[in-house]
Amino acid sequence: MHILNKESIIEIVKKLDLVPLIQDGFVAYSQGRSVVPPVGELSFKDPPGDVHIKYGYILGDSYYVIKIASGFWKNETFGIPNGQGMMLLFDQKTGQPKAILLDDATLTDIRTAVAGQICAQQFANDVHCIGVLGTGLQARLQVEYLKQVTKCRTVMVWGRNQEKIEQYQLDMEEIGFKVALGESPRQVAQKSNLIITTTASSEPLLFSDDILPGTHITAMGSDTPTKRELGPGLLKSADLVIADSIAQCQERGEIAHALVEGDISNDRIVELGNILSESKPGRTTPEQITVADLTGVAVQDIQIATAVFESYLEKEI
Amino acid sequence: MHILNKESIIEIVKKLDLVPLIQDGFVAYSQGRSVVPPVGELSFKDPPGDVHIKYGYILGDSYYVIKIASGFWKNETFGIPNGQGMMLLFDQKTGQPKAILLDDATLTDIRTAVAGQICAQQFANDVHCIGVLGTGLQARLQVEYLKQVTKCRTVMVWGRNQEKIEQYQLDMEEIGFKVALGESPRQVAQKSNLIITTTASSEPLLFSDDILPGTHITAMGSDTPTKRELGPGLLKSADLVIADSIAQCQERGEIAHALVEGDISNDRIVELGNILSESKPGRTTPEQITVADLTGVAVQDIQIATAVFESYLEKEI
Repeated sequence: MHILNKESIIEIVKKLDLVPLIQDGFVAYSQGRSVVPPVGELSFKDPPGDVHIKYGYILGDSYYVIKIASGFWKNETFGIPNGQGMMLLFDQKTGQPKAILLDDATLTDIRTAVAGQICAQQFANDVHCIGVLGTGLQARLQVEYLKQVTKCRTVMVWGRNQEKIEQYQLDMEEIGFKVALGESPRQVAQKSNLIITTTASSEPLLFSDDILPGTHITAMGSDTPTKRELGPGLLKSADLVIADSIAQCQERGEIAHALVEGDISNDRIVELGNILSESKPGRTTPEQITVADLTGVAVQDIQIATAVFESYLEKEI
Repeated sequence: MHILNKESIIEIVKKLDLVPLIQDGFVAYSQGRSVVPPVGELSFKDPPGDVHIKYGYILGDSYYVIKIASGFWKNETFGIPNGQGMMLLFDQKTGQPKAILLDDATLTDIRTAVAGQICAQQFANDVHCIGVLGTGLQARLQVEYLKQVTKCRTVMVWGRNQEKIEQYQLDMEEIGFKVALGESPRQVAQKSNLIITTTASSEPLLFSDDILPGTHITAMGSDTPTKRELGPGLLKSADLVIADSIAQCQERGEIAHALVEGDISNDRIVELGNILSESKPGRTTPEQITVADLTGVAVQDIQIATAVFESYLEKEI
């Protein structure tokens, strides 16, 4: 049994070509070549916290993977990162534990940003401004990972906390982006043709008439049944609605709200893996509005954890 | 973060007074002082294997616990134990990982045997013969743990594999039991007034008219929706039907079958924790037939994992 600490995980993951790995995971999932049970959940009230257990395996792989990731929103007041967690790899043929990746949720952060990168590459037009809602870790990582798929270095950001917005601006300018501050989510939408929503909001922030033709939205903030960032009508007016996992999006995230409100029907939702494998069409005209709803699927965890561990083993030999 | 290996876990657990710990867990569960989501499950076909993820927390405790335990039934042909797994402890207030107990499912084996011991103590009459179905690890541990609650050292065992039965006889005689071999489950039942069923059978082994008045049965082999050891009618004719967790037993184990077949109704099932706290009656006359259906509840894992880790920390200081 191998135990990898965060430092070695970060060293290894830097050298991995993550996009094809995560894409393969989504394709395996959509083609039914994986086993991914419903997400396990545990909630805490005081202090408030959510734990997600995502687990499963890809048929024919060496390992099955269990990922534990939590968000405890008061942690930062004690100087502890909000995100915590680890990934566990077990032998698919014997159940024996093979590796514990003590990543403190870093691999979850990265595989989430990579999914956003894949969506931007697939669905966005030539980007003139990246719109960002939120100023947290994903608001940074998502934009940073876009560097590999667009030349655009112009960002407009909106957030609730002025201090955090200014810090975001400083930090992102340091890594090469020009950051304007939006006065409202609507202003961000009016300036951008690629929008990434990364907040933990439970009230809609963007509405149908905020969005310009040709925009792609990656909505990744809402990953529970209560959170939402996109208002009623928005998914109805979108030309293409993509789910990372149809099964999960029926229960949580933006699509779940739109289904309840009758804005869309199940047959209008296309699964990301089916577009990546070209069995379903993606964007077909530049004018279309496309929305990708990312809730985070265990296949992403399986792919990144397996790649990190296999790369670690290669170096060991 | 602390990582405990199997050897230190076994050393620590030997010195713990487990019965009150596990009893407290069942009582907390039945009184709604715990959060225990549905069991997570993962199945494998070739080679066949089942993984159970049991997790949750007791309100006011320091830790939340995730337990991973698997059974891969072909392992023994490769010289690897069928049971594999680990227990993880995280801080309830921050989500930070605090301990990994690399117990290889040993703590699951022990807390399961302790639950059987608690049931025997609560529900069995003065025991003249312990009847055992199955010859595996639980067929041994359950009987070994009974030493603390009965003076009876007479066992009648039934199993399908002659070689394993003889090995069982040898091994159990070494730890002080006199073991007779039953020709059928019925013969075992006709000789015994405490019966422990520990097989992975998916066909019923014991039937209503096999059971003598005054018998207590602890059925712990069936922990999935398909496995069963008790035949139609048996729970109907029992005077007291106890579930370790009513919610779990409605989905898996003997009670689930009896509910589907209309043998019992939900209001006839009594939860173990409610009897232990004396809010519901247990056995009231010596003639009654009592059946306890054990599917294994996360509170058992939470209690044993927390006690092991706290005892480890005390020694560290």
